[in-house]
Amino acid sequence: MYSAAIDELIEKFLRLPGIGQKSAERIAFYLLENMTEKEAEEMAAAIVGAKRKIRLCECCQNLTDESPCHICSSPKRDRATICVVEGPEDVSAIENTHEYNGLYHVLHGALSPMDGIGPDDIKINELLLRLTDNAVSEVILATNPTVNGTATAVYISKLLAPFDVKVTRIAHGIPIGSDIEYADKITIIKAMESRSEMK
Amino acid sequence: MYSAAIDELIEKFLRLPGIGQKSAERIAFYLLENMTEKEAEEMAAAIVGAKRKIRLCECCQNLTDESPCHICSSPKRDRATICVVEGPEDVSAIENTHEYNGLYHVLHGALSPMDGIGPDDIKINELLLRLTDNAVSEVILATNPTVNGTATAVYISKLLAPFDVKVTRIAHGIPIGSDIEYADKITIIKAMESRSEMK
Repeated sequence: MYSAAIDELIEKFLRLPGIGQKSAERIAFYLLENMTEKEAEEMAAAIVGAKRKIRLCECCQNLTDESPCHICSSPKRDRATICVVEGPEDVSAIENTHEYNGLYHVLHGALSPMDGIGPDDIKINELLLRLTDNAVSEVILATNPTVNGTATAVYISKLLAPFDVKVTRIAHGIPIGSDIEYADKITIIKAMESRSEMK
Repeated sequence: MYSAAIDELIEKFLRLPGIGQKSAERIAFYLLENMTEKEAEEMAAAIVGAKRKIRLCECCQNLTDESPCHICSSPKRDRATICVVEGPEDVSAIENTHEYNGLYHVLHGALSPMDGIGPDDIKINELLLRLTDNAVSEVILATNPTVNGTATAVYISKLLAPFDVKVTRIAHGIPIGSDIEYADKITIIKAMESRSEMK
């Protein structure tokens, strides 16, 4: 319906996650009507530049432009604790709390038999290799509380049983600031099961 | 919180309309984790390419890679009717109905005194120039039924009064398939005012 160059631009944005036809059109027109040619070139350069510079940290497998990454190479972090997450965005969410001081391990996904994703498709072996020197005392499994995330946590906890390391799972319960009446049944059951004594 | 190259990429996507922090992060990680370097380069090329190729049609002011655009240069279109819209996305929406066969005129905005957008900031003069040869018999004002869109339609209709041309406004009413009980008051009033006899 549009010129070929506009159609192509819309089609490229359509491939991105969370972008539908209307959003893709809006973004394309914004680019063509409101951005200068310089800004468009800077955007294109940022895409190609990031893609070329960013690789996986040899240690925690997080996305980074220097390996080991700034967390793995920081002398201020507690090297005895590893928090295992599904993706780089989870590292970001936990870092934003400014409460966790250990290291991370990014799996880049979760086990999903339905999608044919097995243990060799995510970074589980790389996690085991980090435990060989006995420097780690606790592995916190912070995969998502979904079917796949939970299955991944259970699988890893079994793999880690032979190691001399404490394996923990993040708590599930009613989110702070939300109403119990709007929480789903499973969350309420988990919150009841994990109740703690008030002191 | 991320590497500089990732932060820069997120920041670029944040500038696009309808993209918040979370969406920008999701898009950036998708680019880095799921796209090949070739796909990222193609995306960058589409942005720069569209920005360079696309210009305004000398006639209707729509975005195009050839001027006059394929609608203005089509021998199949009714050259006596011009439909005036605010943006290129409105042309697309009307074209998708496959019911309108006239020409368009894209204003690239609407009058908005609050934002300092006056008649010289949108393509009103270009519309007047198209009426000088008396080939146009009807101008349909299809600006949005908002305060600014309506003000723009009223302003243009006054400017066109001296011309020998019929000036019409698209109808406002209850959208097809929706419920009257959910329609806002002004829409119901407009729908009642514009009622037509059933035959």
